Amino acid sequence: MGKREIDREYVETVVKVRYAETDQMGVVHHANYLVWFEVGRVAWCRDKGFSYADMEAEEGHYLMVAEAGCRYKSPARFEDEIIVRTAVAKATDRVIRYRYEIRSKAGGRLLATGETAHVVTDRSCRPSRLPERYRKYFFSETPAGADRG
Amino acid sequence: MGKREIDREYVETVVKVRYAETDQMGVVHHANYLVWFEVGRVAWCRDKGFSYADMEAEEGHYLMVAEAGCRYKSPARFEDEIIVRTAVAKATDRVIRYRYEIRSKAGGRLLATGETAHVVTDRSCRPSRLPERYRKYFFSETPAGADRG
Amino acid sequence: MGKREIDREYVETVVKVRYAETDQMGVVHHANYLVWFEVGRVAWCRDKGFSYADMEAEEGHYLMVAEAGCRYKSPARFEDEIIVRTAVAKATDRVIRYRYEIRSKAGGRLLATGETAHVVTDRSCRPSRLPERYRKYFFSETPAGADRG
Amino acid sequence: MGKREIDREYVETVVKVRYAETDQMGVVHHANYLVWFEVGRVAWCRDKGFSYADMEAEEGHYLMVAEAGCRYKSPARFEDEIIVRTAVAKATDRVIRYRYEIRSKAGGRLLATGETAHVVTDRSCRPSRLPERYRKYFFSETPAGADRG
Repeated sequence: MGKREIDREYVETVVKVRYAETDQMGVVHHANYLVWFEVGRVAWCRDKGFSYADMEAEEGHYLMVAEAGCRYKSPARFEDEIIVRTAVAKATDRVIRYRYEIRSKAGGRLLATGETAHVVTDRSCRPSRLPERYRKYFFSETPAGADRG
Repeated sequence: MGKREIDREYVETVVKVRYAETDQMGVVHHANYLVWFEVGRVAWCRDKGFSYADMEAEEGHYLMVAEAGCRYKSPARFEDEIIVRTAVAKATDRVIRYRYEIRSKAGGRLLATGETAHVVTDRSCRPSRLPERYRKYFFSETPAGADRG
Repeated sequence: MGKREIDREYVETVVKVRYAETDQMGVVHHANYLVWFEVGRVAWCRDKGFSYADMEAEEGHYLMVAEAGCRYKSPARFEDEIIVRTAVAKATDRVIRYRYEIRSKAGGRLLATGETAHVVTDRSCRPSRLPERYRKYFFSETPAGADRG
Repeated sequence: MGKREIDREYVETVVKVRYAETDQMGVVHHANYLVWFEVGRVAWCRDKGFSYADMEAEEGHYLMVAEAGCRYKSPARFEDEIIVRTAVAKATDRVIRYRYEIRSKAGGRLLATGETAHVVTDRSCRPSRLPERYRKYFFSETPAGADRG
């Protein structure tokens, strides 16, 4: 799959840095990037045509975080507008992998990259499978047989 | 009720300021004091002989926050040890009011005072009453007939 | 001052509830409302024509939180869109008081009301006065002689 | 280096899960593990004989987070006591790498593992070198010539 197609897969959403997200270094505390990734996943779901809240509430299925990683390239600062770019890197009906880019809206500078892996679970945190009606959203991202893990 | 008795009612617990709790002013972000009050309530429950987690999990009863207030006197800083002092100010089987003092462990300086009010609810956030077996913990704090509004 | 005029003073901004802002009651943790108030203040500054970030960075002046209060009327939930309404309640060149309404965007239901008081300080948290060029933003809100504390 | 020696290098500290750290899945939100890692680093510094706060305040040197990763094995819950185990994995005077284990205090169950990389910077986030007097703390962990990245 070419670079252009991968780029098109990213769903973008914007967050504005909150004062509470800064720390005494004067920049955004690094743990908040995981929260922004989560904001990115919710926007990704909306873009694909469903609500993550509904998937939890109506189907009782959760995408529990199993792994998270982030590489911080350049600090984000209070009141900066930040673009969170989210794409599915790999999906099965049991495990979903997302990847992220965090960019400054002014200038497009790359601030961070990251990835998360999620296990599909039921309400009791037990492994489960994606509900049938949700599979199309995740699998349309990755052609049959593709393995981009 | 005399000053001495009120003082005895406070349950103390210690938190150490985390880096993530600071903001770009170089002091603890003010929203964290509400989290510390909550840590104080959990310690208060333990001191009285029960676990707030159990009250939620076993009885399905919650103390939902209905009001919160805080007055900030002096800033707390990274790595400071902080004493959270928690007391019940007033309790019925439907509404519990707590008050708090936040002090520096080194020197005892008063950093903040606050109060919260809680409505007893069921799992669905509907008003309820304190489970019978938990009433003694809250009511022993305040003599019958006292008007502690 | 009539109800209509007060209403016009509110500056509105929208936040979308983040998963990280929920707690195990299944609703937004109460401490986040103070963060939303802060988001409201930043939006209020932008609406008036200046940036709070600039006031800190260029003038070295801070609006340190001295008091905060919130009354929670109805819970906010994951993915809800929330309107944060922010107005100056009272302002001198040393102390600024804001008030807030938190409403559900869908339906306009009142979720919480609150208020904060801020002391103008320098970088070292010492009391100071609003820089001359910023006074107009705050004082235009409150006619001379008004005392709505 | 044998397994036993590596184990001895871990510095342990305990945190108790706060209500505010849970999310609507009923478990600790995953971003909090990065905050616990940070609590672990502060405890590690104290154990070695210095204060991270002092290194920032007195020397103007920071350990800026450049990378963070976490693998979540089993959820942590409200009121659980959690052991944060922290060790230096690799250190030069420009880059420090830590690794972590998060365990349940009751039973010792492994809840998560993680690692962070930190670039030594000055106050302005520019790359710098560990102050001379601090090097011994980090380098005593890793024998000369060792490369365990």
